Amino acid sequence: MSRCRIDLGRIEEWVKAKRFKKILIQVPPGLWPEAVTVSEFLKKAGVETIIHGGSCWGGCDVAYFEAKSLKLDAIIHMGHSRFLERDEVPTYYLECRYMDPEPLKSLLGEIKDRLSGCKRIGVGLTVQWLDFLDELLTWLRNIGFEPYVGEPIGVLRYRGQVLGCNYHPLLKLEKIVDCYLVIGSIFHGLGLALQTRKPTYAGDPCTQRIVKLEEHVKKLLKSRYSYIQEFRNARRIGILLSVKPGQRRVKLAVKLRRIIEEAGKISEIVVVDDVEEDHLLDLPHEAFVNTACPRLSIEDQNRFKK
Amino acid sequence: MSRCRIDLGRIEEWVKAKRFKKILIQVPPGLWPEAVTVSEFLKKAGVETIIHGGSCWGGCDVAYFEAKSLKLDAIIHMGHSRFLERDEVPTYYLECRYMDPEPLKSLLGEIKDRLSGCKRIGVGLTVQWLDFLDELLTWLRNIGFEPYVGEPIGVLRYRGQVLGCNYHPLLKLEKIVDCYLVIGSIFHGLGLALQTRKPTYAGDPCTQRIVKLEEHVKKLLKSRYSYIQEFRNARRIGILLSVKPGQRRVKLAVKLRRIIEEAGKISEIVVVDDVEEDHLLDLPHEAFVNTACPRLSIEDQNRFKK
Repeated sequence: MSRCRIDLGRIEEWVKAKRFKKILIQVPPGLWPEAVTVSEFLKKAGVETIIHGGSCWGGCDVAYFEAKSLKLDAIIHMGHSRFLERDEVPTYYLECRYMDPEPLKSLLGEIKDRLSGCKRIGVGLTVQWLDFLDELLTWLRNIGFEPYVGEPIGVLRYRGQVLGCNYHPLLKLEKIVDCYLVIGSIFHGLGLALQTRKPTYAGDPCTQRIVKLEEHVKKLLKSRYSYIQEFRNARRIGILLSVKPGQRRVKLAVKLRRIIEEAGKISEIVVVDDVEEDHLLDLPHEAFVNTACPRLSIEDQNRFKK
Repeated sequence: MSRCRIDLGRIEEWVKAKRFKKILIQVPPGLWPEAVTVSEFLKKAGVETIIHGGSCWGGCDVAYFEAKSLKLDAIIHMGHSRFLERDEVPTYYLECRYMDPEPLKSLLGEIKDRLSGCKRIGVGLTVQWLDFLDELLTWLRNIGFEPYVGEPIGVLRYRGQVLGCNYHPLLKLEKIVDCYLVIGSIFHGLGLALQTRKPTYAGDPCTQRIVKLEEHVKKLLKSRYSYIQEFRNARRIGILLSVKPGQRRVKLAVKLRRIIEEAGKISEIVVVDDVEEDHLLDLPHEAFVNTACPRLSIEDQNRFKK
């Protein structure tokens, strides 16, 4: 049984209305069982499906290229809400929201204990948990908190939503709240913790853990500082530019190259899809500036030896 | 100093004649120094260059997508001869042939010893060594051999050329020759050794080694056999279909899916760019059929746990 709310009828409606015959199904690894359910359902409905076997890092990473390359009619992109304004290939964003609120509810006791010093809490949830936003707010009020949520803006399509690269709505609450609670993973909380001075907690219903991110931030900033020092000494700098539809920052890359060259260093723009350690090691550059996913420079920096 | 014959003047002529302003430089990792030479030369000539930071497995793997995605005018693809009939983006194949015949010449003594039982030798060279084909034939005749080479056909553009995936011209000599000598790497020799019953030697001027590939072939066939047995027991089969321009075998993949489903198994076509172990492990399939680079199933099979 699927853990997610997947309305197969609505998918079928969309496919039939648009007369799509060949569909690419793209999914992050955790959602394979759900992808197979969708694929088998569509096959039975007479639609040809092809599964995307590469990475899938977010709504910024839609497999338009693969779909176009194989002349497919449309994409079903699972696990993320729409990130891009326009799709190069018709794309159905199947958000895969969890159906069972229990894991979220059973976090409440620990939330009450661990966040006891806070009264006003800025609350954010990943799209998977968004169906339970209102319930969560009620639960939090019932145990004495005063929760606040951000309103949708830009790539954040829903009230209360967080993405690993965008926390604007929560940061707008900075002066109101005492602390933040991000429901999702440590990854999702950490992105916010790095941008605020307010205490930030990550609450993960899957692991049943509440983590205060203070120590994580200190450790990260310390290592970032040493990377910055190393970067200063590098002479040949590669500027990483992604081809992923939502990470393709050409103007920024060109601007950075100009700045770096004006600083007397040698610089090349290096185009990549996934940023792979092996490729960076092989390249002749001593250091890299990243214009792709901002989280690469945070979580994955120590994966990369330069 | 570059190890390769790189006619910068001719590149400049091509770029100026076509009025290209923005160029992608794609290169396999071993040729980074040469790529940087080309990039710096073009930058000084007023051309914007972007370096491709991904993999580059052969002339079948040209970065059209990246060039189109970044709206670049052309590609300089280094280290391989033309493989594809038509380019989706204007592409200059800079073959990077070695300039120094010495490492090849100094293999001759060992060739004479190790191949002493053979008289008539089928000879193939990777594109990097092709400038010395005639010299090599003369040297071989001088030490008592009778060398034969294949004529160009299809993706093999030059007399005597070998690719890791194509040995037709040499296999046509099967009845004439006593053994084969492939100048390049073990990789290049092994592909031929798997398709012939004649003794096959790989001669690598870079490592100064002559390797008889009999044992390699035995070991490979043994492990292939066990993979085939495992494959028979798998119920859910993924058919790997590559998006690389020269590896995109859609019809073959569709045909294989039909055959596999007729055999009572469940099957999905899985689209990939590079075939990555991590992705295969995450996928819900118990086994895979590869329609991408044929060498993946040979060299890299034991990298993949399924």
